[in-house]
Amino acid sequence: MDFDFDQIDRIINARSVAIVGASSSPFKFGSLITTSQVQVGFEGPLYLINPKEEEIMGHKAYPDLRSLPETPDLVYLVVPAHRSMDILRECADIGVKGVILVAAGFREAGEEGGKLEAEALRLAADGGFRMIGPNCFGIYNPRNGLTLLPGYDFTKIPGDIAFISQSGGFSVHLAREGQSLGMRFSAVVSYGNAADLDEADFLRYFARDPQTSYIAGYLEGARDGRDFADALAEAAAAKPVILWKVGKGESSRRAVVSHTGSLAGSSDIWEALLRQCGAIEVSGIDETLDVLMALQKLGRKPGRRLLISGGGGGLGTYGADLAEDIGFEVPALDPASFERMQVALGRAGAVAGNPLDIGAPLIPLDEFEGAMREAAANPTTDVLIFDLALNFAYPLLGPEGLERAAAILIAAHADSGKPLVVVLYSRACDPDDLKYEETLRRMRHRMLEAGLAVFPSMPRAIRALERIN
Amino acid sequence: MDFDFDQIDRIINARSVAIVGASSSPFKFGSLITTSQVQVGFEGPLYLINPKEEEIMGHKAYPDLRSLPETPDLVYLVVPAHRSMDILRECADIGVKGVILVAAGFREAGEEGGKLEAEALRLAADGGFRMIGPNCFGIYNPRNGLTLLPGYDFTKIPGDIAFISQSGGFSVHLAREGQSLGMRFSAVVSYGNAADLDEADFLRYFARDPQTSYIAGYLEGARDGRDFADALAEAAAAKPVILWKVGKGESSRRAVVSHTGSLAGSSDIWEALLRQCGAIEVSGIDETLDVLMALQKLGRKPGRRLLISGGGGGLGTYGADLAEDIGFEVPALDPASFERMQVALGRAGAVAGNPLDIGAPLIPLDEFEGAMREAAANPTTDVLIFDLALNFAYPLLGPEGLERAAAILIAAHADSGKPLVVVLYSRACDPDDLKYEETLRRMRHRMLEAGLAVFPSMPRAIRALERIN
Repeated sequence: MDFDFDQIDRIINARSVAIVGASSSPFKFGSLITTSQVQVGFEGPLYLINPKEEEIMGHKAYPDLRSLPETPDLVYLVVPAHRSMDILRECADIGVKGVILVAAGFREAGEEGGKLEAEALRLAADGGFRMIGPNCFGIYNPRNGLTLLPGYDFTKIPGDIAFISQSGGFSVHLAREGQSLGMRFSAVVSYGNAADLDEADFLRYFARDPQTSYIAGYLEGARDGRDFADALAEAAAAKPVILWKVGKGESSRRAVVSHTGSLAGSSDIWEALLRQCGAIEVSGIDETLDVLMALQKLGRKPGRRLLISGGGGGLGTYGADLAEDIGFEVPALDPASFERMQVALGRAGAVAGNPLDIGAPLIPLDEFEGAMREAAANPTTDVLIFDLALNFAYPLLGPEGLERAAAILIAAHADSGKPLVVVLYSRACDPDDLKYEETLRRMRHRMLEAGLAVFPSMPRAIRALERIN
Repeated sequence: MDFDFDQIDRIINARSVAIVGASSSPFKFGSLITTSQVQVGFEGPLYLINPKEEEIMGHKAYPDLRSLPETPDLVYLVVPAHRSMDILRECADIGVKGVILVAAGFREAGEEGGKLEAEALRLAADGGFRMIGPNCFGIYNPRNGLTLLPGYDFTKIPGDIAFISQSGGFSVHLAREGQSLGMRFSAVVSYGNAADLDEADFLRYFARDPQTSYIAGYLEGARDGRDFADALAEAAAAKPVILWKVGKGESSRRAVVSHTGSLAGSSDIWEALLRQCGAIEVSGIDETLDVLMALQKLGRKPGRRLLISGGGGGLGTYGADLAEDIGFEVPALDPASFERMQVALGRAGAVAGNPLDIGAPLIPLDEFEGAMREAAANPTTDVLIFDLALNFAYPLLGPEGLERAAAILIAAHADSGKPLVVVLYSRACDPDDLKYEETLRRMRHRMLEAGLAVFPSMPRAIRALERIN
């Protein structure tokens, strides 16, 4: 069907929702999504439907859709595949306009499932409703309080990242870790088999959605290659689009078929397509998050001249190796900056330059402050990277000293206006000692709030920079 | 000088140590190493030398080497470069056989420093002692209680991994994180500029050391390419050797010179050399640790046929993508295993096969147990990989259920005798909630103890498998 913004918008920004198959029995999808949705709290009426129960988690249970006091904008359908058809007919009868079909057992499960999926599509077309799924986890939308399966701990603070995903698991993983990293979402859509609404629809929708500044996606295939390419080019012209495409090898293509019944297509064609359309290609949840982090904190194309600094000569050498391997520069300092940095450092063990080795895990903080100021202000610095092994600096500085170190980095960024990347990690991660992790998370939170990008390792930082440049 | 096992052994397994430049002033190397060494507790006599102090950290301070009651096996020299020459003469005078020169400011610092380094070498040759450094952090040896700078929290439980490193920082990072991951070391040597004892000496030493089963190294260059190649081939014939070589690009070579004064050499030559000599090339602390983990838990060449499993179809597809990209197989199950697995799973949402999608973060544990047993026993499985998003499974199973899941994985490994890899992570890492991290570390510890390999992400697991195959 043709793209229709309002149809999709009515699903994503639904004002009333019914869960058919809501349940209190553990280990069932119907129970998981009901628990999550009740916990998160949908902003409008939430109707729970199960003919065998009177009350579910403190909510009245309705026997069927027809018994509801109104026609809901959206029906979350979590009954098994073979029982879905009757409910879809009921949806059509009462004039529902949007359905999420959660169950598996459709096209991805073989011939019988394929027939069921075709039947569902026919019912949607005849009944005049649009459908997400089947074989999906649903929608997370912090604005109206819709949540994914089992996104019980998703914030209701909205943001400007949209994520669309054929995998339910990855939709939850990305949204959850993004949230921990301070990212906020306009919406996350797990769309599974894409029987009706597909990747092209969601790309077009989020390209137009004013709440969305970044679009990321996990794809196993595209139903219509040409239409997808058009939608992708259109979306990437409007805002940054980050895509993770799987199904490039033989058994991963086999896995794609049994996962979402998609046709994966060849690796080369996909890579060329994404490049031509202006999308950023990534691989994995971690890299998707890293690139989102880089785009949000550093902006698109922050420059290729890196100043790499930290405590120790090895890490500068290593960072420079990684950077140069992908065509970045680690240029010499401007002579005036170099001189001022030497004065600021003024001690054996620290080596002014680029890479900048401050000599110890962290030198006395006044010297550190001077060195960071010069490193950021130096005219050949496009992006300043500071590597901080937290467990290494902790015994010298304590948590208060580390807080001051964070403040120095934040000031270097604020005063110079230069993008600043912190590589922050602890190499001590014993089973019984969480103090470094606790301090690390607090520092990371503070630095992220102040507009610094924070990555857990130098390769991930450098790779993210490469992707956005 | 020619390789001499006993000379090096007398340094590494020293029975008495003097620290010249021991100090109580914070932020000085002399104080850091003294604190660490006193805290860790050297097994034999530890002499602290500083003419300006009477007592340091509860130990009597001696004014100079000549005042000691015996000639120590090893002298840790932490006075500045220009003041080292007098002490080296003193070492020669009293018959010291081993010296660690910690200070920077030698060859890596320019012409003046180069002259000092040449002078130190001449003093060592004339005085009949061997030298580690300059510009290094020293030695960690759990057997006699020597420790690195600032390895105050290093265990005294010995193991069978030797790590040699031109970077002091990386020597500490690798040893510290390795320790958290249950790895134990025969010794870690930070050797800096390699003025006297160099990479070839240490490779030969640890190749012969009966305590050492694995040798890992961080290199910026090699003093004598031919000698290094001989030593490497010899070591790699004796035991697995894992090398991380930096200094491949222009500014990283510049960084190498200012870090340890080494000649880095071209990237291609190094890669070919490492391959020909039978070493495993890696990049970064994380990858070095991953490969050590893989070697210790899975053995060399565990096989290229992977069974990839976890909760969700996406991760199997992604894992298969990564595996096939580097020439691994994700083969179909043996038909009999497939049938038994279908019976064990017996529920919608879970898909028997390879990749194996158990359908939810974790299904009821009896079904999980049956599926894992079949997956491990399946004849086309060389290595079983299970992906566990801890934060995803936690709300369903709680910490006790997760402990049982760990026991099921441990049993699948023990009963089948197949190598088992767990990809274990939490995607919820909020600043104020450490419960997942706590559970994760406890589970990881238990699984590592039971011989499973545990990695934090699928790409790192697959990459480590590739390196050892």
